[in-house]
Amino acid sequence: MTVITSKDNPSVKLYVKLSVSKKERKKSGMYVLEGFRLITDAVNEKSLIKQIFFTEEAYEKYSSMLSQADLKEVKVLIISNELGIKISCTEKPQGVFAVCEMPPVKKLNDFIRKDGKYLVLHQLQDPGNLGMIIRTADAVGVDGVILSECCELYSPKVIRSTMGSVFRMNIFESTSTDELFSCFENNGISSYAAVIDSDAYDLRKCTFEGGCAVFIGNEGNGLPADIAGRCTVRATIRMSGHINSLNAAMAAGIFLWEMSGK
Amino acid sequence: MTVITSKDNPSVKLYVKLSVSKKERKKSGMYVLEGFRLITDAVNEKSLIKQIFFTEEAYEKYSSMLSQADLKEVKVLIISNELGIKISCTEKPQGVFAVCEMPPVKKLNDFIRKDGKYLVLHQLQDPGNLGMIIRTADAVGVDGVILSECCELYSPKVIRSTMGSVFRMNIFESTSTDELFSCFENNGISSYAAVIDSDAYDLRKCTFEGGCAVFIGNEGNGLPADIAGRCTVRATIRMSGHINSLNAAMAAGIFLWEMSGK
Repeated sequence: MTVITSKDNPSVKLYVKLSVSKKERKKSGMYVLEGFRLITDAVNEKSLIKQIFFTEEAYEKYSSMLSQADLKEVKVLIISNELGIKISCTEKPQGVFAVCEMPPVKKLNDFIRKDGKYLVLHQLQDPGNLGMIIRTADAVGVDGVILSECCELYSPKVIRSTMGSVFRMNIFESTSTDELFSCFENNGISSYAAVIDSDAYDLRKCTFEGGCAVFIGNEGNGLPADIAGRCTVRATIRMSGHINSLNAAMAAGIFLWEMSGK
Repeated sequence: MTVITSKDNPSVKLYVKLSVSKKERKKSGMYVLEGFRLITDAVNEKSLIKQIFFTEEAYEKYSSMLSQADLKEVKVLIISNELGIKISCTEKPQGVFAVCEMPPVKKLNDFIRKDGKYLVLHQLQDPGNLGMIIRTADAVGVDGVILSECCELYSPKVIRSTMGSVFRMNIFESTSTDELFSCFENNGISSYAAVIDSDAYDLRKCTFEGGCAVFIGNEGNGLPADIAGRCTVRATIRMSGHINSLNAAMAAGIFLWEMSGK
């Protein structure tokens, strides 16, 4: 196979553009993956991989571990080890990269079911937090994560922090909180606003019966009052310690843990 | 006041050394803080601040917000705005820096009490995780966090991620797991090993009665078998979802939440 050595190769150029530019990802509907484990997860979950790049070293080490059946529709390219180091975003590059197609946009009504458990993230801004929350939602087992005005799902940092959960989890990107609330209402889903307020309902006492959605807000500012006000219940993690706030991902994880255990 | 403009000023040199070198921190027993909020927290919690550096701009903005009484024993230095940018480790420097003395080393027996709730972190390696866990421990209210072979507590990244909880939380750096287990035994403290094992005891059923200590292991490898085996209970976060692991900080947070609620 030909070994690509130049950054000017059109496929490599596309990879680099997609790895650095949100605009490019949005325009093309594609995003990138780096690392063997992540790419294997994508393959196993039938995500739409278009291209895989192996460095020469990585090809020897990893390619036999991906079945030919899985790679039928995938264009496999070999790049030089040096080029692999250049296009990598990690400290210890494995030399495996992929270009992936985003899944088709779903309709909210097809996404929500009456007795489902959902997490809504509103204006969450930190990519590491977003990834960690999706990973936790996948682990504890909720039916879907809804993103409303959050940081970009398909940025490399978010994708990496999900540890592959992004391929398994049902994720919906909402563009209208009005639509969201009316869909919850139509399906009899109770909404819980996670707030920092000692007068709010104690999370430990929430029963989370039937269909439920928990709303988590921005890292610095929490949920806007109008969003919290539209929820069925305002719930709080009662702090017994010295500070009255938790990292947003931790708060989301504790709400997920409580909701999934009921 | 004289404005320091050079990186060669001995005080500035010390600050920079302490901010980049673990060895230097260990040797001197000092560490650094950056940012007004963090430094205010340190002052409020009576941490031993030796020096504060303000840039000229920051001095105008922040210095009046720290009381003279609090700053009695503190050497205050003014540095140029340019120098502030040079020595900063953040993207948006506020221009406030401090050199702090580490608290005196405690004895384990003075740290542990019979009915206390403790978290033991064993071989935790990620500074962001360590900081987030200390913050969570402070919020939910446990009696102490014990570090055993973890990444360095006083690195700027850990200190920053604790969001000030490092000054409030009881933290003990253990050098002997033998001593730890015998101290727990002598005090009738039950130890819980957090493991990923569907045969282990379900965390949701743990009662955490009386004195308790939860052990959390390394991000990649979890707890070593010999440590888990010495604990009274092997407990697990039963996953109902698709993956069988959580980020170590998230797992610690969920254990802390369960332990503090019982």
